[in-house]
Amino acid sequence: MYDVEEIRAQFPILSRRIGKAPLVYLDNGASAQKPQVVIDAITRGYAEEYSNVHRGLHTLSTISTERYEGTRDVVRKFLNAASQEEIILNTGTTEGINMVAYGWAMPRMEPGDEIVLSIMEHHANIVPWHFLRERQGVVIKWVDVDANGDLDPQAVIDAIGPKTKLVAVTHMSNVLGTVVDVKAICAGAREKGVPVLVDGSQAAVHQPVDVADIGCDFYAITGHKLYGPSGAGAIYVRRERMEEMRPFMGGGDMIDQVTREAVTYNVAPMKFEAGTPSIVSTIGMGVALDWMMDLGMETIAAHERRLRDHAIERFKGLNWLNIQGQSESKGAIFSLTLEGGAHAHDISTVLDKKGIAVRAGTHCAMPLMQHMGLGATCRASFGLYNTEEEVDRLVEALELCHELFA
Amino acid sequence: MYDVEEIRAQFPILSRRIGKAPLVYLDNGASAQKPQVVIDAITRGYAEEYSNVHRGLHTLSTISTERYEGTRDVVRKFLNAASQEEIILNTGTTEGINMVAYGWAMPRMEPGDEIVLSIMEHHANIVPWHFLRERQGVVIKWVDVDANGDLDPQAVIDAIGPKTKLVAVTHMSNVLGTVVDVKAICAGAREKGVPVLVDGSQAAVHQPVDVADIGCDFYAITGHKLYGPSGAGAIYVRRERMEEMRPFMGGGDMIDQVTREAVTYNVAPMKFEAGTPSIVSTIGMGVALDWMMDLGMETIAAHERRLRDHAIERFKGLNWLNIQGQSESKGAIFSLTLEGGAHAHDISTVLDKKGIAVRAGTHCAMPLMQHMGLGATCRASFGLYNTEEEVDRLVEALELCHELFA
Repeated sequence: MYDVEEIRAQFPILSRRIGKAPLVYLDNGASAQKPQVVIDAITRGYAEEYSNVHRGLHTLSTISTERYEGTRDVVRKFLNAASQEEIILNTGTTEGINMVAYGWAMPRMEPGDEIVLSIMEHHANIVPWHFLRERQGVVIKWVDVDANGDLDPQAVIDAIGPKTKLVAVTHMSNVLGTVVDVKAICAGAREKGVPVLVDGSQAAVHQPVDVADIGCDFYAITGHKLYGPSGAGAIYVRRERMEEMRPFMGGGDMIDQVTREAVTYNVAPMKFEAGTPSIVSTIGMGVALDWMMDLGMETIAAHERRLRDHAIERFKGLNWLNIQGQSESKGAIFSLTLEGGAHAHDISTVLDKKGIAVRAGTHCAMPLMQHMGLGATCRASFGLYNTEEEVDRLVEALELCHELFA
Repeated sequence: MYDVEEIRAQFPILSRRIGKAPLVYLDNGASAQKPQVVIDAITRGYAEEYSNVHRGLHTLSTISTERYEGTRDVVRKFLNAASQEEIILNTGTTEGINMVAYGWAMPRMEPGDEIVLSIMEHHANIVPWHFLRERQGVVIKWVDVDANGDLDPQAVIDAIGPKTKLVAVTHMSNVLGTVVDVKAICAGAREKGVPVLVDGSQAAVHQPVDVADIGCDFYAITGHKLYGPSGAGAIYVRRERMEEMRPFMGGGDMIDQVTREAVTYNVAPMKFEAGTPSIVSTIGMGVALDWMMDLGMETIAAHERRLRDHAIERFKGLNWLNIQGQSESKGAIFSLTLEGGAHAHDISTVLDKKGIAVRAGTHCAMPLMQHMGLGATCRASFGLYNTEEEVDRLVEALELCHELFA
């Protein structure tokens, strides 16, 4: 039995009010709130155990390093990677994908070489590839979604041509909630000898992830969406790709020897972790992932399916409400527009007066919005602590918007 | 009057013990401890006010964004920059210097073009330039320090030739404590039309910094050494350089428009801040810098000069102890070796048994160590909360090492 009230009680912010209304936090797609166990880990990290890592032999340094490196194995387990050495700790998905773009793709792509993207990608999985287009003549090939927001894996595979060097695709749309069959894409791409990068920013929050089963080459996650601190993340990199990748950022900790004339590098994954990391945030991310695994990723997914189904049921009665994305695979992420053209910003402002936090805008996914002919939407994105009652409060507030703006 | 005991009482970790001995934390060069006001800001950030920034219109997002952006002005004030728009918030000095290497230097350097470095640089201010050497044939020109560890500004200026595109120099050596006359270097470089990057990782912790007075083009700082959280930092970039710099990482928040065909960028400094930042760590850095400025940077510097002078006085009596770096400008950073060849690692282990945290090794500054003919040193690096009694405890423990290893 999933005791959502017991879970909510672990998140101090969820008991706060916005004005007079209790907070209904439905902006989880942008960032999730943190359970007390994560906040406590951060406090303990600074108040009792803080030191830099990897550098010192003294007691605090040893403690910090053990806790920090402990996160690497937590991430390995969370993603079911074969080895800790395939896990690079970083500051989040943006750094992870940029590292792949600069470190793996940049040195091996010639003008006219191609990268295949879905139209559903977040800017974090678009702009690094636009850089390669701007700077060295790489061609981006886009694969569209259908009217329901589904991405046909075969369409992605078919887009792979002889000049394609990489497929980069989201595991779950941050706008539509569509879950992509990345396993099928990876299987097809592997037959053609093309590596696949998966943006797991959203998917890893809402369902079990198994990179061994998926068969991807890169899988990027970001801690702040995973109920962990801001500023920490990780990327799984398959061993063969890791060996092909040159270092991204240069600095302390990632070197073996530095002289006036030359530099040699540390072994992977350290080679890809330059300078003092987000020590305590990374430790906190490990605590958050352990906490999620203790709850059970399948259990979390089942709760969120109930929320999704309840929301779909409630939204059905509202004939002035449009839900963007109708995939069968859809998670509990709803991009909403109102008939009559009320602006998403105005809707979100009304919702905020009722204590409901949603996001209004283009959700860092402008190509998708253009494809769907949308200017902006309101996005209600649910997390493991949301309730069916909160769905109902959202519906009530949307009804108020309809009255106000119709 | 500088009440160091009152200051120490604000740092919870300083009351802990290492085994039976009270902690004597002398590893500030690697990272500093955090006052309660910073820890409280982090806790409040997560427990009461957390949201992503720049993205939402809801109340929590507005609060988070205000606090996050508030840090930008704190950094501006801390560095005496003319405008907030010259401050890029990031994860620390390593990211800051890599951003300059990739975003400013890489697109404008031809094979044979030169970068002038001092031999005292930290790997964070060496390896990014070695990348440019490896990848595009840039030449690194090294300027040595003299036997005291002093860097002659004129020697740096004289090293600037017609093919020099950048001077990159530390403001304070993390090994020797030497403070470099970066103002003189900047004046000479400006006459030759060459920009200067200053690595302020150490200097900004120990003395007032005024980028307007220094006249540099880039000044990088890192929050975790500045009594702030790990994972947050900033770089000052002079407006003209900012305009010349192309974006480093691509992702959300740094764009204006993204289409299938093209991308246009946000205005500076947002153009250089991709993705969800280290929100709460950055807020905490702002609190730390405000706290330091309340104490007074000149007051802090005066306290640390007293510690330095007391240490020098005490070390004088120990004829088996070598202090690396004898610059008049020296701060309270002491790299130590013992006559008789006791290994730095063994010394630091003995010191740890006495509760004293120092760093042993090459301090991410291998070219300097090679120049000085050193394999490894023990480094005792002092901060604003250290005391003369702690100097005395260090001396006692070193005497024990001398007995053990002589």
